[in-house]
Amino acid sequence: MRLSDIDTPAVLIDTAVMERNLARAAEYAREHGLRLRPHIKTHKIPALARRQIELGACGITCAKTTEALAMLSCEPPDLLIAYPVIGAQKIARLIELARRAPVTVSLDSVDAARPIAEAARAAGIEIGVLAEMDVGLRRVGVPPGEPVLDLVLALLRLNGLRWRGLAFYPGHIKTLDESGRAQLGSLREALWSAVSLLKERGLAPEIVSGGSTPLLWESHTLPELNEIRPGTYIFNDRNTVLSGACAPADCAATVLVTVVSTAPDRIIIDGGSKTFSSDRLASSSEATFGEVVGHPLLRFHKMNEEHGFISLNGAPQSFRPGDRLRIVPNHICVAMNLHERVYGIQGDEVTAEWRVEARGKLQ
Amino acid sequence: MRLSDIDTPAVLIDTAVMERNLARAAEYAREHGLRLRPHIKTHKIPALARRQIELGACGITCAKTTEALAMLSCEPPDLLIAYPVIGAQKIARLIELARRAPVTVSLDSVDAARPIAEAARAAGIEIGVLAEMDVGLRRVGVPPGEPVLDLVLALLRLNGLRWRGLAFYPGHIKTLDESGRAQLGSLREALWSAVSLLKERGLAPEIVSGGSTPLLWESHTLPELNEIRPGTYIFNDRNTVLSGACAPADCAATVLVTVVSTAPDRIIIDGGSKTFSSDRLASSSEATFGEVVGHPLLRFHKMNEEHGFISLNGAPQSFRPGDRLRIVPNHICVAMNLHERVYGIQGDEVTAEWRVEARGKLQ
Repeated sequence: MRLSDIDTPAVLIDTAVMERNLARAAEYAREHGLRLRPHIKTHKIPALARRQIELGACGITCAKTTEALAMLSCEPPDLLIAYPVIGAQKIARLIELARRAPVTVSLDSVDAARPIAEAARAAGIEIGVLAEMDVGLRRVGVPPGEPVLDLVLALLRLNGLRWRGLAFYPGHIKTLDESGRAQLGSLREALWSAVSLLKERGLAPEIVSGGSTPLLWESHTLPELNEIRPGTYIFNDRNTVLSGACAPADCAATVLVTVVSTAPDRIIIDGGSKTFSSDRLASSSEATFGEVVGHPLLRFHKMNEEHGFISLNGAPQSFRPGDRLRIVPNHICVAMNLHERVYGIQGDEVTAEWRVEARGKLQ
Repeated sequence: MRLSDIDTPAVLIDTAVMERNLARAAEYAREHGLRLRPHIKTHKIPALARRQIELGACGITCAKTTEALAMLSCEPPDLLIAYPVIGAQKIARLIELARRAPVTVSLDSVDAARPIAEAARAAGIEIGVLAEMDVGLRRVGVPPGEPVLDLVLALLRLNGLRWRGLAFYPGHIKTLDESGRAQLGSLREALWSAVSLLKERGLAPEIVSGGSTPLLWESHTLPELNEIRPGTYIFNDRNTVLSGACAPADCAATVLVTVVSTAPDRIIIDGGSKTFSSDRLASSSEATFGEVVGHPLLRFHKMNEEHGFISLNGAPQSFRPGDRLRIVPNHICVAMNLHERVYGIQGDEVTAEWRVEARGKLQ
């Protein structure tokens, strides 16, 4: 099959670029003695998780129990649900998962931990647990210092759980500009003090799990860190480029679209918020939704559900309905989640077709 | 099944409110002699399209051929693809559709029309066509006046197509404030002059199709209009309330979520951009993503993929992990598209479960 046989809009994955991204991160983790546990939220495809495991990943990270169930065919050696698993249905699924693969969950409260411990005891199994620490995003996690120690001590008291260490997500650091570097410094201190406090009590964490794609290549500068969970690095996107963690040529994913209408100053494409998501750029106030490959002047400035508005922005009107374009999205994780299947390509050749198995698994 | 049996995040449809919304629009259309052709992009559920048809809808509107194929079980008396159908795969699907239901497509160029006409001739069938007119959104459509006449004359020359009239989408009018009223006045003039120009040539359009949910109740003030295509009106959302086209009590859809983490100033819920979409409000610069039912102070101000950040904003911290909340989303159409199934409820009783059949049908 050729590219021209694919209907639009469609996500294309340049498999050579993807393999290079995968190999680079695997090599980096190996070199620095870090366990690599990729977050599958980006691709949601068991075959790609399998590829990550083949290249040395110690396991996978999922956000949801349904997502994890859909990924089990990748045969993960170890499975982390990096999300507080709360509610009877989710805990039932967690137990089912734990019967089929070694499972650990990260959480930040005894309210979240107790029902999991009870269910694990009732099932006669043990579930791994990481204490989630907030390092600045103000999302989940207890503050570093005494609250982390208190949470760990509480987790240790709950039979059915096996405390394995700490988890954090430095999502507040989006670029490594001057202020990002300062935040990275604070993160180093927070990690050091949290781990020291635990060690003083004889509680050496087996796992200190953190990291993100923007900070991927800084992981070795965080001395306590021994496990990283990047997701986006497999494909990269405009956000990754802006973060400084990859070059434009490292973006493996593009969205193939068709021009459906033209006017003197604009073109309209068959992809909008139901194709790209309406995510703006993470670290820029610029309200654009993608970069048109090979047409640097064009400005993808507005979306409706099924329409993308691209201003020619001074470029000549050389497009006609039916022309095809490829667009690098702002945020590939949310775009992937909108597609039933995506295509692997090498040049103009379609070399793979993958169902996005864990897409739309909401619970 | 009770509400408490549903795992979160989940879209809930209050069926009494939905039925009231449906009946009101059906009654309005009947009273004013307008054909009602709901856009199914909002719900994407054949059973709900069937309900719209039972209440008098003349047919349905879809944006995509795959979406239309997934909706065929609602047995539409007439089917409009309100989108230029471009590309071999889509045209093949259009022909397949046309063999199973009367199909019309709206488009704005001869480039888009010619391949459809050729395919229809080859298949020995005729496909209806509406000339799309741009009334101010600057999306698809030719400008009113001579360009509309030229497009209609070109369509009339293409065997395989049956020209049926005009289509437009007034998506640029988001509220009926003073400036919205002025835009509505210009729309009236544009419609009148486009239709007059056609009539002068003896080309009376059978269909003049337009409208949106924000302008739904103004449709009778556009004298040339005889068909309306609202979508969102079945459920309504924060955007509809802000547009003035419904009251808060007319929002039939909420998203049920669970509190997964708490801190002195905030709660985190298990719904983010993969649950709600990251659509901001259409007619406000306020960057919030939903209204928490029963908690007017709370401010849903930020999202990650699976996390919603809600600031307590002065409200007391009375929440614990495991608590459930219901949230009125900004834009229900994009939220529905993220869910595999949604639930109909009456009070605490779950009375229906629908698969979102046409979800993620991208082409």
